[in-house]
Amino acid sequence: MNFLEERIAKEGIVKEGNVLKVDSFLNHRMDIALLEEMGKEFHRRFADKPITKVLTIETSGIAIAYPVAKAFGVPLVFAKKSESVKLDGDVYTAEVESFTEKKSNRVIVSKKFLTSEDRVLIIDDFLANGCALQGLISLAYLAGAEVSGIGIAIEKGFQNGGERIRNLGYRLESLAIVEQMDAKTGEITFRPQNG
Amino acid sequence: MNFLEERIAKEGIVKEGNVLKVDSFLNHRMDIALLEEMGKEFHRRFADKPITKVLTIETSGIAIAYPVAKAFGVPLVFAKKSESVKLDGDVYTAEVESFTEKKSNRVIVSKKFLTSEDRVLIIDDFLANGCALQGLISLAYLAGAEVSGIGIAIEKGFQNGGERIRNLGYRLESLAIVEQMDAKTGEITFRPQNG
Repeated sequence: MNFLEERIAKEGIVKEGNVLKVDSFLNHRMDIALLEEMGKEFHRRFADKPITKVLTIETSGIAIAYPVAKAFGVPLVFAKKSESVKLDGDVYTAEVESFTEKKSNRVIVSKKFLTSEDRVLIIDDFLANGCALQGLISLAYLAGAEVSGIGIAIEKGFQNGGERIRNLGYRLESLAIVEQMDAKTGEITFRPQNG
Repeated sequence: MNFLEERIAKEGIVKEGNVLKVDSFLNHRMDIALLEEMGKEFHRRFADKPITKVLTIETSGIAIAYPVAKAFGVPLVFAKKSESVKLDGDVYTAEVESFTEKKSNRVIVSKKFLTSEDRVLIIDDFLANGCALQGLISLAYLAGAEVSGIGIAIEKGFQNGGERIRNLGYRLESLAIVEQMDAKTGEITFRPQNG
């Protein structure tokens, strides 16, 4: 197991309905040392790419994307969910469905901050059915930006989002891929990965 | 002018209704080098305090709080607005009114992540009428935690939030205090500060 898998195995809590709670270190209380290590690991995996911008989505993506953007020396842009919008009219928008919130959201990004010059590394905390991620890919597409890579902290390998995105040809790297998890026993099994 | 005031003077956009847009470097596109410098400055200003946790509120507080938490070597906890709640029942809650969204929000934090052992440094991007900040102070109070300091990126000095919080005895440091701003001319005047 790598460092993130170890932490998930130790502190992650499996709940009914395919929910994996990691709020003690990743998305409520945040362990900065862990996030720094994740940032270095994403940088190592995408170091061959000439990234110009890290793109994520509010809220929990931001603290994961921060050390990645710092490692690449590029700005961080986060897409906003439409309910919190105070942007000018000049935005790209995409529809996404949230797995955990069971509702449809619009995500937006200002046209000023994502352009056809950009080679984007997309970062997010979770990948399940891939809806949020497809929203971010759509925003990049609308801007004419290239998606140079996608880095995910935790992929739910038993849902089809990762497979679908990889089949589209994207270079998608997940630090931890959960193959199975059991709310009754609390057991979490990870997909073996190289590197 | 300090480094943040300079950046605001250069890139901040004043809109009608006391709105100051800083989304090109602080809360949509984020300039990591600037945030790192802000993190170091907050650390310098509160270095005499035995901080155990940095507390902020989603969304734009997170990237400002990240380098502060890193500098202190402590975890970052962000309070959640109630609409995005997927937490267990065991939470502290406080009501806050949002200046820009013109509505009342509940903010919450898990009881597990804020305790009476904590000496908290609260970090946020904006301080205007102080409602969000008072929500965070309430959460710390409910947890029995001590508020050791409050660090704000941009305070609107022409609104009374800062005065009110300082009058309550809190040590509040704002990196930039806007004394006046004019939507017609775009002019921004800062309150002179020592250090």
